[in-house]
Amino acid sequence: MGVVIPLDGERGAAENAVGELQALVADDMAHVDAFILDRMASDVPMISELASHLINSGGKRLRPMLTLAAAHLCGYDDRNHIKLAAAVEFMHTATLLHDDVVDESDLRRGKETARKLWGNQASVLVGDFLLGRAFKLMVETKSLRALEILSQAASIIAQGEVMQLVAAKNTGTTEDAYLDVITAKTAALFAAAAEIGAVVAERPDAETAALESYGRNLGIAFQLVDDALDYSGKAVSLGKNVGDDFREGKITLPVVLAFRRGGTAERDFWQRTLQQGDQKDGDIDHAIELLRVHGALEDTVMRANHYGAIARDALAIFPDGPYRQALTNVVAFCVNRAF
Amino acid sequence: MGVVIPLDGERGAAENAVGELQALVADDMAHVDAFILDRMASDVPMISELASHLINSGGKRLRPMLTLAAAHLCGYDDRNHIKLAAAVEFMHTATLLHDDVVDESDLRRGKETARKLWGNQASVLVGDFLLGRAFKLMVETKSLRALEILSQAASIIAQGEVMQLVAAKNTGTTEDAYLDVITAKTAALFAAAAEIGAVVAERPDAETAALESYGRNLGIAFQLVDDALDYSGKAVSLGKNVGDDFREGKITLPVVLAFRRGGTAERDFWQRTLQQGDQKDGDIDHAIELLRVHGALEDTVMRANHYGAIARDALAIFPDGPYRQALTNVVAFCVNRAF
Repeated sequence: MGVVIPLDGERGAAENAVGELQALVADDMAHVDAFILDRMASDVPMISELASHLINSGGKRLRPMLTLAAAHLCGYDDRNHIKLAAAVEFMHTATLLHDDVVDESDLRRGKETARKLWGNQASVLVGDFLLGRAFKLMVETKSLRALEILSQAASIIAQGEVMQLVAAKNTGTTEDAYLDVITAKTAALFAAAAEIGAVVAERPDAETAALESYGRNLGIAFQLVDDALDYSGKAVSLGKNVGDDFREGKITLPVVLAFRRGGTAERDFWQRTLQQGDQKDGDIDHAIELLRVHGALEDTVMRANHYGAIARDALAIFPDGPYRQALTNVVAFCVNRAF
Repeated sequence: MGVVIPLDGERGAAENAVGELQALVADDMAHVDAFILDRMASDVPMISELASHLINSGGKRLRPMLTLAAAHLCGYDDRNHIKLAAAVEFMHTATLLHDDVVDESDLRRGKETARKLWGNQASVLVGDFLLGRAFKLMVETKSLRALEILSQAASIIAQGEVMQLVAAKNTGTTEDAYLDVITAKTAALFAAAAEIGAVVAERPDAETAALESYGRNLGIAFQLVDDALDYSGKAVSLGKNVGDDFREGKITLPVVLAFRRGGTAERDFWQRTLQQGDQKDGDIDHAIELLRVHGALEDTVMRANHYGAIARDALAIFPDGPYRQALTNVVAFCVNRAF
């Protein structure tokens, strides 16, 4: 499958890339974790249990790390970035809970989803609970600008998910439309997470804009690689099943590219399997073969590299140092997960 | 059915009671409506369509009216109460969208629910979209205290819904546990809506506390009457089906009272129908008969009167005038809907 052959050297480098950032913000992240534990507590045991299942499910806390590192990059030396980072993680967790309900997912990062274990009803409501707690944390920082950015992001994320719902199963989706969806559903929170690091440090517009751009482009690259990974053997080691998107009829960039580049018989295949949802044994293998023939996964990762490069360059206005270096290397981590 | 015999005179009085408040805040409400229309707009047509279905579905806008009237009662003469009232209505609408998904409801106020028309997925996501927009509106008022109250309410509402989920089908639910549920799921938003009227006017603690108490007790009375109405012929004219709660196995105060007051055969009946969900033709009629025998609906409305009285007395610290009068009469509207 070409692009997805595991290359141990590169994979190691990618893991080091995020490890460097993790080490830099480790002290802060311990405080973030303490806030997360404290604020997901509830008198209703089901809420704490469900929230703890998700919070402890082995995510890398990439988004709150962006807030912490961006604040340090901007020379911030107070404590409000901790609460904002915890709020970002709560928003992300709430989104995951609602996403799993919307996608009817049973598995996330190799573990059963909350909706599978506690049901759709509890997942919807605990998502709402965490969203309320996220806003409470933001309010405590008294940063109206951070509140504005994150409340705006909350609407945009939901809007992106609805766009995806509407575009779902439409094989005629354009690359532009696909980009609009992932910019909203994924990149908006990355962008907000990084931007509020500069906002809390009260830095000038040029720096908030640079970090917003860094987060947004990193988020787009991250999602593009995620969508390529869904069709690769690497998916299994990430706790996903190969072809989840295919089975759900999700139109992602690999499919958009292969559909446009293919002939009539191939388009009929994509329409039958994704648009009409009529799938047989062996269809997923045929889909992967078509993606290979058209270089759709390589080109999806190539697109990711493009956005990754923009993200890296956005940081150029900041003086060199460990935080700029670590944030730069995170781009490599996000893109090289594909290998 | 005793308590629920329609008495035209009293019903008329109840409608006048809310009409008085509607007339007082009519100008403000036109501005609230303009904000609602403006802020529910989205480039994604499905979002605007679904939001507009709910926003225009004939609700009385009771909660935003409380914010508007409370602000005037406190002598507020600026414009931020308008945005806060619109935010309250968005929060309420988001809650309804998610509630209908959780309860699998097909009908609300006599119209098909959004989840029936657009599906559960869109209902979850548009609810999230409106919640984001609600917070954006609050942020624009720059009132950190109002933001704190409403974000806290958002978590408490979700917590109340989860409590209800856990208590559902448990016929041993106590009156205290039931009160905890409705205080959280319903009264918290009434309380917040009224309290922020005093907050935006920057009034002393005694007045914010009085309006919080007014809203909370009014909300409890409102929900108690709602739960009694569910078993009464009046339900139909409110666009509900008689016995919706019964069919969903919801344990509300009428059932809590009848279960405790009944003998073994009656308890077996409630356990079979609600706990085990084993319902036959005629069960709803038998349930209504048991509620009648034990005076469970009268006593539920009697409890509502008790909370309504507390709500009225909470307003006593304010000087008399048209807003205090109208808010006082709203209590009668909420309680007398039972007739």
